[in-house]
Amino acid sequence: MALPKLPQDINSNQKMKYLTIEWLQSRGVTMADIATLVLEIQQQYVPGLQLEDCMESVDRVLDKREVHNAVFTGLALDELAEQGVVPQPLLDILKRDDGLYGIDEILALSIVNIYGSIGLTNFGYLDKVKMGIIGEVNGHKGSQVNTFLDDLVAAIAAAAAARIAHRYRDQQESLA
Amino acid sequence: MALPKLPQDINSNQKMKYLTIEWLQSRGVTMADIATLVLEIQQQYVPGLQLEDCMESVDRVLDKREVHNAVFTGLALDELAEQGVVPQPLLDILKRDDGLYGIDEILALSIVNIYGSIGLTNFGYLDKVKMGIIGEVNGHKGSQVNTFLDDLVAAIAAAAAARIAHRYRDQQESLA
Amino acid sequence: MALPKLPQDINSNQKMKYLTIEWLQSRGVTMADIATLVLEIQQQYVPGLQLEDCMESVDRVLDKREVHNAVFTGLALDELAEQGVVPQPLLDILKRDDGLYGIDEILALSIVNIYGSIGLTNFGYLDKVKMGIIGEVNGHKGSQVNTFLDDLVAAIAAAAAARIAHRYRDQQESLA
Amino acid sequence: MALPKLPQDINSNQKMKYLTIEWLQSRGVTMADIATLVLEIQQQYVPGLQLEDCMESVDRVLDKREVHNAVFTGLALDELAEQGVVPQPLLDILKRDDGLYGIDEILALSIVNIYGSIGLTNFGYLDKVKMGIIGEVNGHKGSQVNTFLDDLVAAIAAAAAARIAHRYRDQQESLA
Repeated sequence: MALPKLPQDINSNQKMKYLTIEWLQSRGVTMADIATLVLEIQQQYVPGLQLEDCMESVDRVLDKREVHNAVFTGLALDELAEQGVVPQPLLDILKRDDGLYGIDEILALSIVNIYGSIGLTNFGYLDKVKMGIIGEVNGHKGSQVNTFLDDLVAAIAAAAAARIAHRYRDQQESLA
Repeated sequence: MALPKLPQDINSNQKMKYLTIEWLQSRGVTMADIATLVLEIQQQYVPGLQLEDCMESVDRVLDKREVHNAVFTGLALDELAEQGVVPQPLLDILKRDDGLYGIDEILALSIVNIYGSIGLTNFGYLDKVKMGIIGEVNGHKGSQVNTFLDDLVAAIAAAAAARIAHRYRDQQESLA
Repeated sequence: MALPKLPQDINSNQKMKYLTIEWLQSRGVTMADIATLVLEIQQQYVPGLQLEDCMESVDRVLDKREVHNAVFTGLALDELAEQGVVPQPLLDILKRDDGLYGIDEILALSIVNIYGSIGLTNFGYLDKVKMGIIGEVNGHKGSQVNTFLDDLVAAIAAAAAARIAHRYRDQQESLA
Repeated sequence: MALPKLPQDINSNQKMKYLTIEWLQSRGVTMADIATLVLEIQQQYVPGLQLEDCMESVDRVLDKREVHNAVFTGLALDELAEQGVVPQPLLDILKRDDGLYGIDEILALSIVNIYGSIGLTNFGYLDKVKMGIIGEVNGHKGSQVNTFLDDLVAAIAAAAAARIAHRYRDQQESLA
């Protein structure tokens, strides 16, 4: 799979966000896919939560520089492993998505932490049950290397869900 | 519930481990309860895994000073909240096990990290589905405050499972 | 030292922030003390940075629920240890500010992470050299227990410095 | 700089450790360089500490699978950036060692955490003052990209120092 064409000189946050979204799409994941995960895990806690609200929360998470950097790094490693240019023994580790590798979870954690530790539980759950797009991405065991992609997607969804939980509380408290 | 009687002068690691186990028991959780969780989440990955192996792994996790300190701190907060001596507004937060508190997950993470990030997924999963003793402990919504207890137990189980995964790999590789 | 008087029913974020500031003050640390640390570590990177900018950044960090919860928990433990009501062996560990305890750094890390991992370096540095108010607080080895206070203050300063670094970059890039 | 020649089939932990050491050396860092850092930060706390003890502690840290994975991943990114094959905008971020990147600290943290949070302070301090080999490596601003190398070295030193602190305590307590 080809990398998205990138302008030579990228330096504003908005451009970085755009590139992050584009890169996720080029690997097969849309913002709507992630928002669907958020809705599924958060709707039992927030009455009346809509997909639209979840889209907006995913969008806010994707504003963050930490998220751009984690996504760029993880997806670059997935792609460079596909191209076979990653040096050994890392190449084999990435290609077989070694369950003891752990660096994929580490990058994901840097995204989850942005809205605090309450996202940890949802991240672990999503990663374990391989819900929705995460399962699809994880199942692509052909030529594609998705060692980082599934964890990054679970982390963005967990962060967006944590953001909704915080905002719902703020709203409840301002009404009280 | 009364605290276990403690010798005045505690300073060896073995005594600390003994106190950690005793304190967990006084809150209603035995090592066998935790080992049962480990077996349930790890048996699909390690052929022939026995409860005894899981007990041994929980025992090794409980050797660690970081685990003692996290357990002492979390359970002290649970008990002091029960006694009503924790200052406000923290007292109310602990008593209602506020989902946005997050410090319980933070302490748990310090246990999970001992065997690396691969424990994160199991921790999140256990915490979400409230498996076995975690669900029992979480359901005690009478006079007992168990805000930290359930997360600590999930973390010890996740760490013990990660330890088994590492050792199983080592064993496989030495046979290869 | 007496706890600040608290309104019976605390539930809005603004009240929590107010309580957080009040509690830090009751332990001997003002927002200006923290802002002074921020200025000292960040002024070499941001030309023209003023104490006022640092005050504003500390103020924004103190808006966050994660910060409130970490401060409430850490300072409650410091105070309950002073009062001698924390159960053993934790009481002795807290009273002697045991260098291997580690839970103080864990709570601090939950604050540092809010603005991403770039705060880690400054946190470690502040905690090691015991700059300004951190050294003062750490030196109070009389009846006061400040095991958590110094790490919490270093963490708030490191987070506020990281926030300034992010915003300075955004500003530079929007000018480019 | 060429990668070290690697045997085709790497799967035992001992081989991974050997490769980790070889790779660090090929980037200009020896185990003795790291042990020297450990001695400098830990000798004030442990009377009679020798370089040899520090070498042994670095050696134990390098036994850990988490350390291998973090080192392989970070140094692969440094080298692939040097070769210019990392996709944009990540390539530019890595080449200029962007202070807001943060993923280098994230990988380092996964090493530091192995011996608990007490390593955090030393990691931050080493990374800030750029002590010894860390300063040398950081100063190589020619064709070499060392964005990850300096943080990885600081993390290994901080973990080895934390390990010594834990063992010194155990020893003291067994004598008591």
